[in-house]
Amino acid sequence: MSIIESLNWRYAAKKLNGEKVSDENVSKIIEAARLAPTSSGLQPFEMVVITNQELKEKIHKLSFNQSQVLDCSHLIVFAAWDHYSLDRINHYFDHYETERKLEKGFSDGYKNGVSKHLTALTTEQQFEHAARQVYIAFAFAMAEAAALRVDSSPMEGFLPNELDELLNFKAQGLRSVLLLPVGYRDETNDWQVHLKKVRKHTNHMVHYIK
Amino acid sequence: MSIIESLNWRYAAKKLNGEKVSDENVSKIIEAARLAPTSSGLQPFEMVVITNQELKEKIHKLSFNQSQVLDCSHLIVFAAWDHYSLDRINHYFDHYETERKLEKGFSDGYKNGVSKHLTALTTEQQFEHAARQVYIAFAFAMAEAAALRVDSSPMEGFLPNELDELLNFKAQGLRSVLLLPVGYRDETNDWQVHLKKVRKHTNHMVHYIK
Repeated sequence: MSIIESLNWRYAAKKLNGEKVSDENVSKIIEAARLAPTSSGLQPFEMVVITNQELKEKIHKLSFNQSQVLDCSHLIVFAAWDHYSLDRINHYFDHYETERKLEKGFSDGYKNGVSKHLTALTTEQQFEHAARQVYIAFAFAMAEAAALRVDSSPMEGFLPNELDELLNFKAQGLRSVLLLPVGYRDETNDWQVHLKKVRKHTNHMVHYIK
Repeated sequence: MSIIESLNWRYAAKKLNGEKVSDENVSKIIEAARLAPTSSGLQPFEMVVITNQELKEKIHKLSFNQSQVLDCSHLIVFAAWDHYSLDRINHYFDHYETERKLEKGFSDGYKNGVSKHLTALTTEQQFEHAARQVYIAFAFAMAEAAALRVDSSPMEGFLPNELDELLNFKAQGLRSVLLLPVGYRDETNDWQVHLKKVRKHTNHMVHYIK
C-alpha cells in the first residue's frame, strides 16, 4: 500500500461545504494523531474537537475570519503542554510501566535522564519542544483524513493567546499550536480546488550521498 | 481507505537488520515528504539521503551510537532553512507563478505579506518556524514508510551542530533537525518489537465541545 495518491488528492481546502464528517471518520482522524510518535513517548499535547457553532464563530474571529473555521464539520484544536513538569513526566512513566506490565520503577533510569534533559530547558524551549511533537500528530491526522477522502485545512494563522484564553488553556497548562478544520471541499466555491499542486522539484530538495 | 492499521504496525525500530529498501520505496517515502504542506507553501527544508557507510559511521558517533544509524538501509537527514531570506521567498513565488501559469507578479501582495511577517522574526524564530514545518514532512515520510511496511526510526537525538559541520550545511544555509533511518526491523534482536504500543487513552487527550 502507499499513501501517495491520498497525499496528492489532499490540498488545504479554503472553502468547505458544511457537510458533516461521520463520527466514525472523526474518530479515525483523532486516532491517527493519538498513534503518532513523540519524543520519549510523552505525547505532550491534547486535542479539542469543536462542533459548537457559537464557539466556532468566536474562533473564526480569532483566525482572521478564515471561512473554513466556520464551514468545517469539526474544528480540531491542537494544544501543547506549556512546559514539561516532573508530575507530567512521572504520570507518563507510571502509565508506561502499567501498560507494559513492568515493575514499578523499572524505567527510573531512563525517566530521570529524560526529566533532567527536558527540565534543563527554559520554559519557552520546553513549550517549543512540545509544539514540534504536535506537528507529527497533526500530520498523521491530515494523512488519515486524506486517506478517508475527508478534507482538512492546516492552519497556523490565528491569535494563540486569545484562543488560549477562550478555551481556558492556561489553567490546564496548555498552549494552542495548530487548528485543523475538517469537512468536505466546496467544489464550486473554492478557487483552489482545481489548481495544480505546487511543490519544489525533487532534485531541488533531495540530495543523495552514496 | 484508512492508515490506522499501518500506524499501529509502525514503531520506532531500535535495531534494523541491514536489508536494503528498494529504490522505488525510498522514492515514495521521499515523495510523501515532498508532498507535505508547509506554511505558505515555502517548503523550507531539504533532505539528504545517505547510503555511504563511512558517512553513516561518522553520523553514528554524532548520534550517541544508536545502532539504527548504522544498520539502516538509507539514512534520511531532514534539514531546515536557517532563516527565511527574501531571495528564498522570491524564488518560491517565481516557481509558484510559473507552475500555475500566472502572470509574473500576480502573487506580489501575498508574497509581501509573507515576507514581512517572516523577516520580522528573529533569525532563531525563523529557523524554529521552518523546523516545525519539517516535522510535517517527516511525519508524512514515516506514514508512507509504514504503509509500505518499511520501518523507520524517528530521531531527534544527535549533535546538530556537529552534523551541520560534517554535511557542510552552514554554507548552504541549512540546519539539521531530524534523522530518519529506514530499513527493516531485526525481529530477533530488537527487544521492542513485540512490546505493547503505549499511548495515552483517548479520553485523556481528546475533549469534545458540542
